[in-house]
Amino acid sequence: MNTVDERIIQEIVHQCLAASRRPVDLVATLSPGDLRIITGVSNRHVHLCREDLTELFGEGYELTPLKELSQPGFFSARETLIVGGPKGALTGIRILGPLRKTTQIEISLSDGRYLGVVPPVRQSGEVGPSPALTLIGPRGTVVNNTGVIAAWRHIHMDEAQAGRLDIRNGEMVSVRTSGSRALVLDNVVVRTAKDMATQLHIDTDEGNSASIQTGDIVEIVRAHTIR
Amino acid sequence: MNTVDERIIQEIVHQCLAASRRPVDLVATLSPGDLRIITGVSNRHVHLCREDLTELFGEGYELTPLKELSQPGFFSARETLIVGGPKGALTGIRILGPLRKTTQIEISLSDGRYLGVVPPVRQSGEVGPSPALTLIGPRGTVVNNTGVIAAWRHIHMDEAQAGRLDIRNGEMVSVRTSGSRALVLDNVVVRTAKDMATQLHIDTDEGNSASIQTGDIVEIVRAHTIR
Repeated sequence: MNTVDERIIQEIVHQCLAASRRPVDLVATLSPGDLRIITGVSNRHVHLCREDLTELFGEGYELTPLKELSQPGFFSARETLIVGGPKGALTGIRILGPLRKTTQIEISLSDGRYLGVVPPVRQSGEVGPSPALTLIGPRGTVVNNTGVIAAWRHIHMDEAQAGRLDIRNGEMVSVRTSGSRALVLDNVVVRTAKDMATQLHIDTDEGNSASIQTGDIVEIVRAHTIR
Repeated sequence: MNTVDERIIQEIVHQCLAASRRPVDLVATLSPGDLRIITGVSNRHVHLCREDLTELFGEGYELTPLKELSQPGFFSARETLIVGGPKGALTGIRILGPLRKTTQIEISLSDGRYLGVVPPVRQSGEVGPSPALTLIGPRGTVVNNTGVIAAWRHIHMDEAQAGRLDIRNGEMVSVRTSGSRALVLDNVVVRTAKDMATQLHIDTDEGNSASIQTGDIVEIVRAHTIR
């Protein structure tokens, strides 16, 4: 019988894991069900602050909820806007409620190409310099140059589930899709909160590049940490 | 010294490889330079057959080359078309030459959403049923319902290079990108030919979802075969 030092096995395993760069597929293999989540593909939309709502729709105006979103308390509004850029305009852009502290215009890079701007890929809620787009409402117009973004892909996750999976708020994971355009999305940030519906949020470019739609099942692969 | 049978090491390595599903990252690790290739992001475009060229531009018309493409003999033409669908129309759509046996309209799924059709994801050159789009030229109009596709992502590869990398024509590989929207595209078909410029061809949705552009470097990871 040929024999080797146990440390050599450790070294081989370590090298396999390092080389594959997807070590925690091992975890997925052990408990596949736990790491499967639902996809939500976000179309372009706008979040408004109170001041901009007033400017666009008039004094004292309130949004009319049209449909509840998967996250409790959030809704898409009956109201829409025109979004104008240097090269084109898009009509019927949905407003999501409730109101926020700052206005944010979430578009895909494809939308940006059409409108004539290159939005930074940034996490929702982060405010910073951005190209300018004009919001056109029934009562007024607002130019925004701090909240025009392509949203950083992310997973909303219920705190309790995150705890079970040993995933921390802000952690980056990878997500695997299946089908003819199967791919693995790296750098998906996990945002945990109490009583969240666990869901992958990607934009239309990302959905299209994977040929997946809202409701499709994907699988978390823990690419960034080893346990 | 603790000792184990050599077969156990083999088993562990095998399990690591199977679980990671990206075994040949090992190859990339061994010779990274060889597996790096250039990206070309294809915007929507049209290939025409002789009959449709005549219908759209008139009897005896020939395309005027505007710019050589990376593949020898291929060019983008000065001529453009309007492409119309049930929900919208896109103008200035570039025609690529030379002429082909059958007309093909290559659009992204985002374009399809805008035009009101869902193109099948299919390899360029494969003819089959598709949604209908209307081509509008200066002298006439053509309705096409066999060549409206979103192109299956692919790598053009020079035969000699494919031989060195032990990649066969038609083989599927995966491609890894880097940056904030890093991802791994699976099911990338390799098409080898003599004197081809080796290049990854993806559409604008795929380029946008990875935040990469024409000229960016990506890396082949041999996900589908083990050597």
